[in-house]
Amino acid sequence: MALGTVTIVGVGLIGGSIGKALRARGLARRVVGFGRDPGRLELARSLGAIDDGRTHAAEAFAEADFTVVCTPVSRVAGDVMLAARHGPLGQLITDAGSTKREIVAEVESDARVCGRFVGAHPIAGSERSGVSHARADLFEGAVCVVTPTERTPMEVVLGVESFWEGLGCRVTRLSPSEHDEALAAVSHLPHVVAAALLRQVAARWLDLGGGALRDGTRVASSDAALWTDIFLANRAHLRGALDRFEAELDGFRALLEAGDRAGLLAWWDAARGCRERGKASEPGKGVFLNTFNNLDA
Amino acid sequence: MALGTVTIVGVGLIGGSIGKALRARGLARRVVGFGRDPGRLELARSLGAIDDGRTHAAEAFAEADFTVVCTPVSRVAGDVMLAARHGPLGQLITDAGSTKREIVAEVESDARVCGRFVGAHPIAGSERSGVSHARADLFEGAVCVVTPTERTPMEVVLGVESFWEGLGCRVTRLSPSEHDEALAAVSHLPHVVAAALLRQVAARWLDLGGGALRDGTRVASSDAALWTDIFLANRAHLRGALDRFEAELDGFRALLEAGDRAGLLAWWDAARGCRERGKASEPGKGVFLNTFNNLDA
Repeated sequence: MALGTVTIVGVGLIGGSIGKALRARGLARRVVGFGRDPGRLELARSLGAIDDGRTHAAEAFAEADFTVVCTPVSRVAGDVMLAARHGPLGQLITDAGSTKREIVAEVESDARVCGRFVGAHPIAGSERSGVSHARADLFEGAVCVVTPTERTPMEVVLGVESFWEGLGCRVTRLSPSEHDEALAAVSHLPHVVAAALLRQVAARWLDLGGGALRDGTRVASSDAALWTDIFLANRAHLRGALDRFEAELDGFRALLEAGDRAGLLAWWDAARGCRERGKASEPGKGVFLNTFNNLDA
Repeated sequence: MALGTVTIVGVGLIGGSIGKALRARGLARRVVGFGRDPGRLELARSLGAIDDGRTHAAEAFAEADFTVVCTPVSRVAGDVMLAARHGPLGQLITDAGSTKREIVAEVESDARVCGRFVGAHPIAGSERSGVSHARADLFEGAVCVVTPTERTPMEVVLGVESFWEGLGCRVTRLSPSEHDEALAAVSHLPHVVAAALLRQVAARWLDLGGGALRDGTRVASSDAALWTDIFLANRAHLRGALDRFEAELDGFRALLEAGDRAGLLAWWDAARGCRERGKASEPGKGVFLNTFNNLDA
């Protein structure tokens, strides 16, 4: 067992899948779930996601060798500091939040925590939430972005990276701000767009939707509070992604108004090429396949 | 056999699937494919999509009791008129084009054709093209919009509707213009948005995309020429859908800039509700399930 006791803060889809993966892979001696609701912890235990549930921080973190915080992004920094306050000095701490800049800055403002925490974001999940959808294989082949800063000790970076690799992730390093800028483009904006697409359809026309609407709006079923938190935490970069996206729509509009068939063909083919390049990626080389592998299976 | 000889103009994904469905269901005595490329027709024949291929219009339509035109929208009206010119007087003609107003107007400008044609649009297909992806079950449970006008004889409407129902479609009637307005919102805009989403992502960030990007951009792999035709043929309504969509994005931006958490929650939940209502639809009642059935299977 590389890890002794692992404490998971927030045992929902992500936290529950981490627990199941740790147990299935035999990576931890004991998996403790920490949360406020005893009923949810009992459900997580009965589903095999944790060995034990704890609702008191002192008990949850007393023996934690490793803590992973899986709460909504507005609560991550507070929970990391809670873990640090109640856990042993040698504990490593990471998180699974979809934004990183605010969280890392807030955690690093606390000198006691700074040296044992590295932010992370496993790019996995779905529009579903809750431990009942947790899966031991959720992270297999998924990219996990780890976001150390110049203040993070290298042994802490390596320890946290090997935790995520142990779950099956392919780890890549970015600064917290780079992470947030990239994720605004590849994830946060696509969520906003999915919801806006649904909102612009008159209710009586929803009947006529086909695969483009169905797949293009799938993530609009995601949890509202979770995503509102993410949008607000990544406001500046999301604004930038919206700007770039609307500039693309403006470009399309100009070609459409001009009836420029050749221009529209080129506009479309440039987008299509991104997907074709993705599909052509060599399995196991690079992380492009996170998005595009088995795309048309 | 309710139908005698059925001629399919353009034996690609849609035309090929119609041929396979007709043959699998024993609906036609003979299925003839008409096209310009003998090699493609031979491939369609070898795959079981047609009984025979013809490259000359006189031969293709001489015995056609029913013709269905499955070429790109810019060619549909011309092909309908070709079928009428070369086929028997009692022939019924329909099409499968993704836009209807321009096609129907052009066909109805020809008095000889007007009384035997009804436009149609089976809402089925995928980002793939070509007869090698054709499937006999492509239309099962799919909505087919049929677009008669005040000039269309009712027996022609009923004959064409029963053709599509025979393939497994659920038929609904709209005017050509209503069809185009609705499809701009539920299909044409989502295609533009998928391509614009890919275009705004820096190439080095594509690696970090997850399910939201993958599913939200799936249809950007569709054929460029086919979709350029559709965008141009439905320019006015597509512009309207873009306007409504960008107004939704503006609404989101205002809430984001104001840091209005309650407003963002409500904005998101209104979109989410569209999907939840769709999923709650009763099977077999209404066509909502075209989009949302098995959504989370």
